[in-house]
Amino acid sequence: MSKQVKKLHSRAGSVPGSLIHIGTRKAEHVRISVIDYDSENLEEKILPSIDQIYPYLDTESVSWINIDGLHDTDVFAELGEKLDLHPLLLEDVLDTSQRPKIDNYGKHLFIIMKMVTWDEKEKTLEFEQVSFILGDNYIISVQEHIGDIFENVRQRIRNDRSRIRKMGIDYLLYALLDAAVDCYFLLLNNLGDQIENIEDELVLEPGPEILATIHHLKRDILVLRKSVWHLRPVIANLYREDYGTITTEVQTFLRDLHDNTIQVIDTIETYRDMISGMMDIYLSSISNRMNQVMKVLTIFAAIFIPLTFFAGVYGMNFNFMPELDWKWAYPVWWLLIIVITVIMILFFKKKKWL
Amino acid sequence: MSKQVKKLHSRAGSVPGSLIHIGTRKAEHVRISVIDYDSENLEEKILPSIDQIYPYLDTESVSWINIDGLHDTDVFAELGEKLDLHPLLLEDVLDTSQRPKIDNYGKHLFIIMKMVTWDEKEKTLEFEQVSFILGDNYIISVQEHIGDIFENVRQRIRNDRSRIRKMGIDYLLYALLDAAVDCYFLLLNNLGDQIENIEDELVLEPGPEILATIHHLKRDILVLRKSVWHLRPVIANLYREDYGTITTEVQTFLRDLHDNTIQVIDTIETYRDMISGMMDIYLSSISNRMNQVMKVLTIFAAIFIPLTFFAGVYGMNFNFMPELDWKWAYPVWWLLIIVITVIMILFFKKKKWL
Amino acid sequence: MSKQVKKLHSRAGSVPGSLIHIGTRKAEHVRISVIDYDSENLEEKILPSIDQIYPYLDTESVSWINIDGLHDTDVFAELGEKLDLHPLLLEDVLDTSQRPKIDNYGKHLFIIMKMVTWDEKEKTLEFEQVSFILGDNYIISVQEHIGDIFENVRQRIRNDRSRIRKMGIDYLLYALLDAAVDCYFLLLNNLGDQIENIEDELVLEPGPEILATIHHLKRDILVLRKSVWHLRPVIANLYREDYGTITTEVQTFLRDLHDNTIQVIDTIETYRDMISGMMDIYLSSISNRMNQVMKVLTIFAAIFIPLTFFAGVYGMNFNFMPELDWKWAYPVWWLLIIVITVIMILFFKKKKWL
Amino acid sequence: MSKQVKKLHSRAGSVPGSLIHIGTRKAEHVRISVIDYDSENLEEKILPSIDQIYPYLDTESVSWINIDGLHDTDVFAELGEKLDLHPLLLEDVLDTSQRPKIDNYGKHLFIIMKMVTWDEKEKTLEFEQVSFILGDNYIISVQEHIGDIFENVRQRIRNDRSRIRKMGIDYLLYALLDAAVDCYFLLLNNLGDQIENIEDELVLEPGPEILATIHHLKRDILVLRKSVWHLRPVIANLYREDYGTITTEVQTFLRDLHDNTIQVIDTIETYRDMISGMMDIYLSSISNRMNQVMKVLTIFAAIFIPLTFFAGVYGMNFNFMPELDWKWAYPVWWLLIIVITVIMILFFKKKKWL
Amino acid sequence: MSKQVKKLHSRAGSVPGSLIHIGTRKAEHVRISVIDYDSENLEEKILPSIDQIYPYLDTESVSWINIDGLHDTDVFAELGEKLDLHPLLLEDVLDTSQRPKIDNYGKHLFIIMKMVTWDEKEKTLEFEQVSFILGDNYIISVQEHIGDIFENVRQRIRNDRSRIRKMGIDYLLYALLDAAVDCYFLLLNNLGDQIENIEDELVLEPGPEILATIHHLKRDILVLRKSVWHLRPVIANLYREDYGTITTEVQTFLRDLHDNTIQVIDTIETYRDMISGMMDIYLSSISNRMNQVMKVLTIFAAIFIPLTFFAGVYGMNFNFMPELDWKWAYPVWWLLIIVITVIMILFFKKKKWL
Repeated sequence: MSKQVKKLHSRAGSVPGSLIHIGTRKAEHVRISVIDYDSENLEEKILPSIDQIYPYLDTESVSWINIDGLHDTDVFAELGEKLDLHPLLLEDVLDTSQRPKIDNYGKHLFIIMKMVTWDEKEKTLEFEQVSFILGDNYIISVQEHIGDIFENVRQRIRNDRSRIRKMGIDYLLYALLDAAVDCYFLLLNNLGDQIENIEDELVLEPGPEILATIHHLKRDILVLRKSVWHLRPVIANLYREDYGTITTEVQTFLRDLHDNTIQVIDTIETYRDMISGMMDIYLSSISNRMNQVMKVLTIFAAIFIPLTFFAGVYGMNFNFMPELDWKWAYPVWWLLIIVITVIMILFFKKKKWL
Repeated sequence: MSKQVKKLHSRAGSVPGSLIHIGTRKAEHVRISVIDYDSENLEEKILPSIDQIYPYLDTESVSWINIDGLHDTDVFAELGEKLDLHPLLLEDVLDTSQRPKIDNYGKHLFIIMKMVTWDEKEKTLEFEQVSFILGDNYIISVQEHIGDIFENVRQRIRNDRSRIRKMGIDYLLYALLDAAVDCYFLLLNNLGDQIENIEDELVLEPGPEILATIHHLKRDILVLRKSVWHLRPVIANLYREDYGTITTEVQTFLRDLHDNTIQVIDTIETYRDMISGMMDIYLSSISNRMNQVMKVLTIFAAIFIPLTFFAGVYGMNFNFMPELDWKWAYPVWWLLIIVITVIMILFFKKKKWL
Repeated sequence: MSKQVKKLHSRAGSVPGSLIHIGTRKAEHVRISVIDYDSENLEEKILPSIDQIYPYLDTESVSWINIDGLHDTDVFAELGEKLDLHPLLLEDVLDTSQRPKIDNYGKHLFIIMKMVTWDEKEKTLEFEQVSFILGDNYIISVQEHIGDIFENVRQRIRNDRSRIRKMGIDYLLYALLDAAVDCYFLLLNNLGDQIENIEDELVLEPGPEILATIHHLKRDILVLRKSVWHLRPVIANLYREDYGTITTEVQTFLRDLHDNTIQVIDTIETYRDMISGMMDIYLSSISNRMNQVMKVLTIFAAIFIPLTFFAGVYGMNFNFMPELDWKWAYPVWWLLIIVITVIMILFFKKKKWL
Repeated sequence: MSKQVKKLHSRAGSVPGSLIHIGTRKAEHVRISVIDYDSENLEEKILPSIDQIYPYLDTESVSWINIDGLHDTDVFAELGEKLDLHPLLLEDVLDTSQRPKIDNYGKHLFIIMKMVTWDEKEKTLEFEQVSFILGDNYIISVQEHIGDIFENVRQRIRNDRSRIRKMGIDYLLYALLDAAVDCYFLLLNNLGDQIENIEDELVLEPGPEILATIHHLKRDILVLRKSVWHLRPVIANLYREDYGTITTEVQTFLRDLHDNTIQVIDTIETYRDMISGMMDIYLSSISNRMNQVMKVLTIFAAIFIPLTFFAGVYGMNFNFMPELDWKWAYPVWWLLIIVITVIMILFFKKKKWL
Repeated sequence: MSKQVKKLHSRAGSVPGSLIHIGTRKAEHVRISVIDYDSENLEEKILPSIDQIYPYLDTESVSWINIDGLHDTDVFAELGEKLDLHPLLLEDVLDTSQRPKIDNYGKHLFIIMKMVTWDEKEKTLEFEQVSFILGDNYIISVQEHIGDIFENVRQRIRNDRSRIRKMGIDYLLYALLDAAVDCYFLLLNNLGDQIENIEDELVLEPGPEILATIHHLKRDILVLRKSVWHLRPVIANLYREDYGTITTEVQTFLRDLHDNTIQVIDTIETYRDMISGMMDIYLSSISNRMNQVMKVLTIFAAIFIPLTFFAGVYGMNFNFMPELDWKWAYPVWWLLIIVITVIMILFFKKKKWL
C-alpha cells in the first residue's frame, strides 16, 4: 500500500497546532542554506543554525532560505516564534501527509506542494513534500531531505546575466514552482515507457504476473493524479487572485506554468484510459486462451473417443460375430478408422479450429 | 444490511416536530455533565437533573454541557422549553438517522455530525450521532451513549495553560469538531490495514470467501463516504458564512479542519478505487484458475485417450491380425506408446501448459 | 415494463391545453370532500357536485378541497372556468405521466408530485400522481383514486389543539407534502427488506431466477430515483423562492422536509450501489460454480482415464505377453491401480481441489 | 452505421456561407405552400414559384410559408437575397447534418431542429431536419421532403374557432415546434415496445442474434439522445431569453413544451439504463448456459468413465483371475455397476446438478 | 504509444522562455511566404530570409506571413526581437507538445491549435501544431512542415471577387481556423469508415487480431478527443470575448465555426460509445464461441462414452455370460447402440444444441 495513505492517523488525538513531525525521517540532520542576491550582488552560504538567517530577511535583496530535513522540530519552533508564523502553518510544514494547497496568512503566503520521483529500487513512486513560505523579500523553502531539484535554479541565479537576477521575489517563487513541476514531466516519461513495455508484453504471451504490474501502475497513477489534481488550483489561485507580492509580469509566467500543469493532468488521464484499456485486453486474452485449451481438448476427445468405441466393438466376445472371421476385416477396419479421422479433421478445419 | 438504512420508516406518519427517539437505545440512563471555565477558573460537575444546568448558561464564562443518551425524551422536552429551542431542532437531535448538517435557528446554531468507530466484534462500522447546540456562551453537545472521544478535549481544558482556556466558545466548538473528525483518521487507518491484508491474500490462493470480505469492505466505504461527504460542507459553511459567534481567529482553525476533512474524503476515494481494482483482480484470478483446471484436464485427456485407443486396437478379436503373432509386437507396442506420450508432452511444453 | 413509461404517446397529436385524462381509470366516480377550519371552527363534508365548493373558497378560514378521481373531465372543465385556471395547468392535472414540478401561475401556485406504494400482488411499484392548486385561502388537492395517505393529516386537523389548527394555508400545504413524502420512507423500508433477502439468498445457492429479481429491483429503483430526483428541487424551490403565501415559519418546516427528501435520495443511491455490487457477486458466483463443475469433471477424468488405459493394456490379445502368465500379475495390477489413484488424489489435494 | 454521421465531410473544403445541399435528395421537386390567416380570414395556396410569396410577407396577417425539398439551391439563393438572410443561415438550412440550435440574426430568429420517425422497412431511425425562419409576421418552415407532421396544425388553423386563429405568429411557432416534438413521443412508444419484446425474448432462450438487436437499439438510442439533448436548450432559450416576438402568454406554452422535452430525455435515459441492464442479463445467460453444458458433460463423463474402467478390468486376459470363473460374477458385476451409478446420481442430485 | 505523449520531458530542466524546438524535425529548411492583399491589390512572394517581412507588416493592407518549419530557432529569435514578442509566446510556438489555447499578450493575440491527418502508411493519427500570431494588420502562421491545408484559402484570396478580399484581418484568421477545423471533418470520415469495417468484420468470424484494431482505434479517438476538447473553448473565447480586432460580422462566422467544432466533438463521442459497444460484442462473441466448442465436446463425449462402456461389457471374459452364446446377441447389441444414439441425438435436439 502506498506510504502516502499510511501516515494519516499519527496526528489523531494531538492538540491542533502542535509541532509534530509526521512522516519518515529522511535526512540525517537539518541543513540550512541561504542565497541572497540582487541584480548585482550574490551571496551563497550554508548556515550552522537557524538564528543566523534573520539578518538576510530584512535586506532589500531577494533572500532564499532553503531548509532540508523536518525532524528537528526545535528549528521550526524558533523560526515560528521569530517570524510570527501561525501555529497551523508550522504544523502543516511538518506534517508530510498534506495535500497541495495555498493559504494566505496575511503576512505570509504559504504554499505546500508535492514533488514526485520514481524510486527505481522499490519500483514505486516517491513523494516529497515541499513548502514555501513567502514573505516580503524572502522565500523559505522546506524540503524533507537534501535533493537536487532546485540545483538548476541555483545555477541560473549564479549566472548574473540571467532573467532571474533582474527580477524580484515573485519570479523566484515561480522558478522554484516550475522546477518542482518539471519533476512530473520526468516522471510521466518514465511511466510512459512502462506503459509501452506492458503493451509490448501484452502482444506476446501475457502471464498472470502482468496483471500485478498493471495493477501497480494503475495505483501509482491514481495516487499521482490525486496529487496533481490539487496542484492545479494552487497555481491557478496564485496567478488569478490578487496577492500583493505577485506582479503582472510574473503572472504571465504563472499562467504558462498553469498550462503545463494541465498538460500533466491530461497526460495522466490519457495514461489512465490506456491502462484500463490494457486491462480489458488482458481479460479477453485470458478468454481467448481458454478457448484455445478447450479446442485442443475437444479435438482430441472428438477424434479418439469414437475410434475407441469402434475398437471396443470388435473386442467383444460374442460367439456369433460374422466380421471376425472375414479375412479382410482387420484392414477394412483400419480403413474405416482412417476415414473417420479424416472426416473429423475436415470438420474441424471447416470450423477453423485447426 | 447497514443499520443506518433500517431505521428510516419509524418516523413515517408521525406529526412533524414531535419528540420521538429514533434509533437503538444505547445508554442505560441519561448522563448530564458540565464544564464551566474561563482562563482562570474551572468547574467540572456531573448533574443529577436537567434543570440544574440553567445557572451555568447565563454566566460570562464558557459552559459546555454534555448529554449522553437520547431515550429519555422528557429531558429534551424540558430543555427545549427552557431554552426556547425549535421543535424541529429537538426532533433532529433525537432522530439518529439524520445526515450531517448545519442549521441556523437565529438564537442557536445547530450542528449534527456522525462519529464512526470500528466495531471489532461485529466486524462492522458503528456510527454515533453527535449534535451541538451553540448558544451565546454555551455549547450543549448530545451523544447517543457515554464515550471517550471528548476526553482529550477535557484534558486540554483542565490544563490551565492550554490555548483552549484563553479562547472563547467558538474555539471550544472547533476543538469538539476536531476531536470528532479525528475518529475518521483512526478508522481510515484500520480500513487501510484491512485493504492491505486483502491485497496480501489476493496474491496467495484467494477463495470465494474473499469476495464477501471485499463486498463488505466496499459497502462500509460506501456508507462512510456518504457520511463524510455531507460533513465537508457543514464545516465549510461554518468558516465561510458569517455566523456572529465565530471569530476570524477560529475561522483559520476551521479552515484547517476543512482541509483535514478533504484529506479524509481523498483517502476514502483512493480506497474505493483500490477496492474496485481488487475486484477486477479477483475475477481475473478466477478465470486464470479455470484455465489451470482446463489445462490439467486437457493434458490428461489428450495423452491417455489416444493411448487407450491403441490398447483397444489389439484387444480386438479379429481372427486375422498379423501383429498379434509377431514375437516383438508387445514391446514394440509399448515403445509406440512411450513415443506418443513423449510427443504429447513436448507439444504441451511448447504451448507452455507444463 | 413500467407502466410509467407506456402512457406517453396518448397525448401526441392532441391540441395543447385540451382536457384529456391520460392514465388508467382508477376510481369509479369522482369524490369531492372539503375540510374548512380555523383555530376554533371545523367543518367537514362530502360534496355531491363541484359547484358546491365555491362558497368555501371565499371564506377567511382555511379550506382544503380534495378531489379523488380524474376521469370525469367535466368536473375539471367547470373548476377551471370558475377559478380561472390556466388550460395548461388543467392539462397537467389530468395527464398522469407528468414529472414532479412546481409552476407559478400568478394567481395560483401549482405543484405536481408522485406518491409511490408497493403493490404486493403485482410485485411492482405503484405510482399515483397528486396535484396541489394553492390559492389565497384554499388548497385543492387532486388524487387519482381514493386513498388514505392524507387520513393522518385529517386526524390532526380534527384535533383542535394541534399545531395545524393554529396555522395558515401554507402549513396545510406543508403537512400534505410531508404526508406524501412519508410514502417514500415506507417504500424504502420495503425495498431495504427485499435487498436484505436477496443478499441472504446470494450467500446460499443462487439460481438463475435471482438474476431476474435483481434486475426488477434495479429497474424499480431506477424509476423511483427519477421520481424523487425531480421532487427535491420542487421542495427546495418552495422554501427558497419568495412565494407570497409561504411564511418564514413554514419555510423552516419546508427546509426540514427538504432534508428528508435528500435522505430519501441518499438511501436510494446507496441501494443502487448495493444492487450493482450484488450483480457482481452473482456473476462471480456463476464463475465460481463453473470452476466447481470443471474440477469434478477433471478429477474423474484424470483418475479414471489412465486406469482404463491400464485395463486396456492387458485386454490386448498379443500372443507373447509375459505378464499374462505370471501368477501374481492380477493382484499386482490392482496394486498399481490403487497406487496411481492415491497419487492422483494426493495431487488434487495439493492443488486444493478436494 | 447511422447516416447522420456519414455526411459530415462533404462540406470540408468549401467556402463558408456557400449554398450547397448536404444530404440525400429526398423530394422530387421543391413544393412551396402558404397559409395566410388572421382571426377572420384564411387563405391557403400552393405556389408555383418562390417569388410569389413576397406579397404575403408584408401583410398584417400571420403568414406561414412551408418549403418541402432542399435540393434546388436557386430557390434559397433568391429567398436569401430578397429577405436579406445571412449567408450562414442559408448554408445551415441546406446542410442537413446540423444539430438543433437557435440563432438570433437580428432581423430573423433562426431555429433548426430534428424530427425523427421509425423507418419500419429499414428498421432504423429516420431523421429529418426542419428549419424555421421567424420574421415579423411570417414563419418560413423548411423540410427535407413532403410530410404530414404539420397536417394537424393546418387542421387547427382551418377551424376558425380554435385558439391558434386568435393568436399571433409566436403561437404558430409554438404549435409547429409542439407538432415536431410530438414525433418523439410516438417514436419513444415504438422503442418501448421493442424493449419489451427483447425483454420477453431474454426470458426465453436468447440466441446470439438478440445481441445484435440490443446493439442496434443501443445505437439508435445513442443517436436519439444526442438529438434531443441539443433540442432542450433551444426551447429553454426561446422562453427564457427576451426575443421581442415571443409574448408572455406564449412563453407559458413554451415552458410546457420544455417540460415535455425533459420528459422525452428522461424516458430516453431510462431506456438507456434498461438496455445496459439487458446486456448484463444476456451475458450472464451465456455464462449460465455454459454452466448447463458443462454439467451435462460432467455427469456423462463422471458416470460412464468409471463404469468403462470396470468393464475393462474384466476384459483383461490375465491367466489367473479368480473372479472370471465364479458363476455369479457377471450378475454381481452388473449389481456393482448399478450401485455405482446410483451413488453418482445421488451425488449429483445433492449438488443440485440434476 | 502516441508520439504526442512522448516528447514531454525534453523541456524539463530548461530555463522558462528559452527557445528550444521540441518535437521531430519535419521540414528540411524553413520556408517563409507572404501574401499581402486588399480588395484591389494582391502580392504573393516566397521570402529568402526573415528580415524581409518587416516592410509588409507596417502596410495598411492585410498581410499573411506563413512560416513552415520550426527547427531554425534563429529565425524565431529574430522575429521575437523585432516584433517584441513575449519569450513565453515564442517558447510555445516551438514546443509542439502544447495543447490548443488562446493567449492575449496585449499587442498580439496568440492562438495554438492542432491539425490532424491520417497517416495511411503508419495507420496512425498525425498531429501538426499550427500557431497564429495576430497583430494589427498581419497574421503570422507557423506550421511544422510545408502542407497544403491552407492552399484552399490562398485560392480564395487570389480570386478578387471573393468575400475574403473585401474583409479584414479578422476574417482571414477565421478562414485559416476554418481550414484547420476542416481537417477534422475529413479525418472523422476516415474513422467512420474504419468503424464500419470493424462492425462488418464483427458479424463474420472475428479473430483475436480485431481486438488490437479496436484497441488502436479507441486510443486514436481518445487522443483526438482531447485535442478537439481544448479547441472548442479557444474558438468560443474568440467570438465571445471582446478582442479589439474581431468585428461583429466575423464573430457571426466564428460562432458558426464553434458550432462545427461541437459537431466534431459530438461525432467523436458517438464513435467512442460505438467502439465501447463493439468491445462488448467482441467479448460476448468469444463467450458464444466457447459455448460452441463446449457443445461439440459434450455431444461427442455424451454419445460415445456410454457406447464404449456397452462395448466394454461384452469384451469381458467372465466364463458365465449367457448373452455371449445367444445367436442374435450381436445384432441386438447393435440395435441397442443405435437406439441409445438416437435417444441422445433427440435429447440434444431438444436442448437446441444441434
